[in-house]
Amino acid sequence: MRREAHQQADGGGQPQRIQTAHATRVMAMKNAFYAQSGGGTAVINASACGVIQAARAHPDRIGKVYAGRDGIIGALTEDLIDTSQESDEAIAALRHTPAEAFGSCRYRLKDLDEDRAEYERLLAVFRAHDIGYFFYNGGNDSQDTAWKISRLAERAGYPLIVVGVPKTVDNDLLGTDTCPGFGSVAKYVAVSVLEAALDVASMARTSTRLFILEVMGRHAGWITASAGLAARREGDAPHVLLFPEVPFDPEPFLALVQQTVERVGYCIVVASEGLRDRQGRFVSEVGTHDAFGHAQLGGVAPILANLTTERLGYKHHWAVADYLQRSARHVASRTDVEQAHALGRAAVELALEGRNAVLPVIVRLSDEPYRWTIGVESLSAVANKERALPRDFIRADGFGITPAARRYLAPLIEGEDYPPYEHGLPCYVQLRNAPVPQVLREKFAVR
Amino acid sequence: MRREAHQQADGGGQPQRIQTAHATRVMAMKNAFYAQSGGGTAVINASACGVIQAARAHPDRIGKVYAGRDGIIGALTEDLIDTSQESDEAIAALRHTPAEAFGSCRYRLKDLDEDRAEYERLLAVFRAHDIGYFFYNGGNDSQDTAWKISRLAERAGYPLIVVGVPKTVDNDLLGTDTCPGFGSVAKYVAVSVLEAALDVASMARTSTRLFILEVMGRHAGWITASAGLAARREGDAPHVLLFPEVPFDPEPFLALVQQTVERVGYCIVVASEGLRDRQGRFVSEVGTHDAFGHAQLGGVAPILANLTTERLGYKHHWAVADYLQRSARHVASRTDVEQAHALGRAAVELALEGRNAVLPVIVRLSDEPYRWTIGVESLSAVANKERALPRDFIRADGFGITPAARRYLAPLIEGEDYPPYEHGLPCYVQLRNAPVPQVLREKFAVR
Repeated sequence: MRREAHQQADGGGQPQRIQTAHATRVMAMKNAFYAQSGGGTAVINASACGVIQAARAHPDRIGKVYAGRDGIIGALTEDLIDTSQESDEAIAALRHTPAEAFGSCRYRLKDLDEDRAEYERLLAVFRAHDIGYFFYNGGNDSQDTAWKISRLAERAGYPLIVVGVPKTVDNDLLGTDTCPGFGSVAKYVAVSVLEAALDVASMARTSTRLFILEVMGRHAGWITASAGLAARREGDAPHVLLFPEVPFDPEPFLALVQQTVERVGYCIVVASEGLRDRQGRFVSEVGTHDAFGHAQLGGVAPILANLTTERLGYKHHWAVADYLQRSARHVASRTDVEQAHALGRAAVELALEGRNAVLPVIVRLSDEPYRWTIGVESLSAVANKERALPRDFIRADGFGITPAARRYLAPLIEGEDYPPYEHGLPCYVQLRNAPVPQVLREKFAVR
Repeated sequence: MRREAHQQADGGGQPQRIQTAHATRVMAMKNAFYAQSGGGTAVINASACGVIQAARAHPDRIGKVYAGRDGIIGALTEDLIDTSQESDEAIAALRHTPAEAFGSCRYRLKDLDEDRAEYERLLAVFRAHDIGYFFYNGGNDSQDTAWKISRLAERAGYPLIVVGVPKTVDNDLLGTDTCPGFGSVAKYVAVSVLEAALDVASMARTSTRLFILEVMGRHAGWITASAGLAARREGDAPHVLLFPEVPFDPEPFLALVQQTVERVGYCIVVASEGLRDRQGRFVSEVGTHDAFGHAQLGGVAPILANLTTERLGYKHHWAVADYLQRSARHVASRTDVEQAHALGRAAVELALEGRNAVLPVIVRLSDEPYRWTIGVESLSAVANKERALPRDFIRADGFGITPAARRYLAPLIEGEDYPPYEHGLPCYVQLRNAPVPQVLREKFAVR
C-alpha cells in the first residue's frame, strides 16, 4: 500500500487538518459531483458532511457540490441535487443522520469495452454541469466504477479528478484498516448482545435458555466477529459465533450449545446471515417454506433455533436485526463517525492537490492506545477486491474470536456520539434536495 | 381508582419526595423481601434501585433487604440474596442496568384454596428470616400472587406488609397510567423504525421497497402503537401497523402496501408478534415449516414479507427485534427510568406508612406539558386483569394510530438517560448476589 500519513487522531480526539507536502496543481474553478452508493450505513452522511464542508471551505477552487439523486443513477439521468441550497446547519446535521441523504442505488456500470454508452453519458452530464471533481462514496464495486470513470475521462481528454470515499458495513474493502459504517454496526451488535444476554440470564432457570441473533455480512464474518466484543470474562455471552467462513456442521454446534447451557445456564449464539452448510448452500435457503407455500429466504436464526430445540429441548428466542443494525445512528461508534467525516474531508483535500484515481483510507498506527491516520490508496488497487476476515481472527474450533481479532476490533467501537433528540426521537435532518435544472436535451434510460 | 397524589414530577424533572398525611403505623424493625417477576425490562432494576435505596434510608425501620434469587422461586426454596452486601455504588448502578439483576421466573402460585403448601412455605421462609415487608415487582400475575400472599398472611396472623411494584413492557397492567418498561420499548421501537425507514427510503428506487419489523405484545397492541410515534408528517413511516386487536385480512393489507409504495416509493410495516387471522389463529403459527420439517413458531414478519412479495413483487427485508427491544437500556426513555425508580421508592414509603396490599401507580396529570404523580391502587383491583389498548387509539381502517393514541404515547418516550460506557460498551453492573445462610431444615421442591 502506498501510505502517506496525512492525518492523525487519538482514539478520542478530533482528526487534525491534513498537512501535505505535495505541490498543488492549479485548476480552474470547477463544480464537484458527489454520489452515495450501495446500502446505507449509520455514518455515510458524515462522509457527505465532510466532503461538502471541505468543499465549502474552498470557494475559490470548488464551485458547487452537486449530489446524484439515488447515487450514480442521478448522474446518468442528469438528476442532480444542488447542495448549495442547503444551509451550513443542515450540512452539519448530516454528521448525525443515518442512511443516505441524497439517495443511493445498487447499479454497476458495465465494462468499459463492453458498453461505453453509460460512461459517455456520465462525461456528457459532467461536461454540461462543469464538473471537475467526482467523489464516489461506496464499497468495492463503487471504487471499481470510479476507477473506470477516471480511465475513460483520461482517454477522452476530459479533465476530471476522481476520488473515492470508502464505505461499507461489511468492512471488506481492501487497502483500508477499517471501513466507515462497520464500527457502528459492530457497536450495535456488541451492545445488543450484551443487553439481550442479561435478559436471557435473568430468566434462564425457568424460561429461555437459547437466544440466537442473526447479523449481516453475507460473505465475510466481520460483523459476526464484532459480537464477540460483548464477552469480556470467561463464560460471558456470546458463547457461539457462526461465521460464513466456517461451514455449518450441526453436531459440533449442538454439542457446544449443550455444554454451554450446562455450564452457564443458557447460551447466546450470533449467526451470520451468510452461514452455509458443507455443500456451500446458504442455511437460510435450504428449502424452508411458509404457510403460503413460498420458499422462505432469510432467517438463519429461526432455522437454528428450531433445530436446537428439536434436538436439545431448550426453549428458544431469536432476533434478526437486519436494517436496524446498519442504520442505528443512535448508538454509533464515535471512532466510526470521526473516521467517516475525516475521510470525506480528506477526499476533497486530495482532489484539491490534484490527486486522481485515489481514495483516502484509514491507516492504523497502534492498537492500544488506538491511533490512526489517513493514507492514500489507488482506486485500481482496491477496485472490486474483497478483504476476507483473517483466518487467525477465528478461534481454532470455529465458534469464537481470537485475541488478535479482539485487538483489531475493540478500538472501532470506542466512544459514543449521540444525535440530538427532540420529543424523545433523534433529530435526523431531511434535506431539501433541490434539483439542478437539466440542460441536456437527450434523456438517458437506465437499464 | 383510589387516587392519592403523593408525588409529582414534570416531564423532565426529578420526582419529589412523597408527602403524606397518613399517620404512620409503628412497626418493629423487620427485614424486607424483594423479588422480580416475569420477563426483563430495560428499567426493572431502576425500581429495584429505588426500593433498596429507600430501604437504606430507613435503617431504623427496615433491617436488610433480601432479594429472591430467580424471583419468587428464591423465596420458596429459601434461596435469598443479601443485598446489604452490595455497595451503594452497585445499587445506584442498577438504575442504568437492564434485565433482572437478582434473576426472575415465570411461576404462578396456585389458588389459595387449591394448594396452600406454597403459601405456607412462603410464610415459613418469611418467618425464618424475620421478613415484615414483601415487595413484588411484576405484572398482572405477580400482583395477583402478591394479593394472595397478603390475604394468607392476614388469615395466619403473620404481620406482613405487601406492596407491589408495577412492571411490564406490555403496558397492560390496570390501575396505572403506564407501566415501567413500556416507555423504553416504545422508544426503542420508534427510534428503530425511524432509522430503518431512512435506510429503506435511500435505496427504494432500485432495491428494497417493503420493510417489516416484528415487535412484541402478544395480546395487546401497545408496543405496535408506539411505533406510530416515528411518523411526524404525512407520508412518514411507519405506513402500516398490524395490531393483535385487528384480525389480519390479507387483501386490505396488500392494497394499503401497494398504495403506499405507489405514493411514497416504499412501505414500512410494523407487525405485532400476536397478529391473528380471522379464525383467531396466530399468523406466526399457521403451519410454517423449516428445512428440518419442524413447525416454525414465531416469525410474523417473514410470513408477511413473503406473502407481499409473492403478490406484489416488491423486494423485501424484515427484522424481528425480540429481546433486543425490551433489554435496550442504551436507548431507554428517561421518563420511564424516572418512573421506575420513583415507583420503587414509593413502594417502600407506602410500606413504612403501613399500607398493605397496595401498589404505587403512575397517575397522569396532563399530556402537554406532561405531568405525572404517584397514586395508590389496591392489589385486588389490579390483580390478574388486563388493560386493553383502547379501541379509539386504533385508526378506523385498523392500520394506524389516532391523535388520542399519540397524545397518550408521546410523553412516555421523552428524554434520554444513557448508561455510562467503557471501551465502547455500557457499564452494566453485575451484583455479587451473596446468599443468605439457610435456616430451615425442610427443603421445598418447586413444581
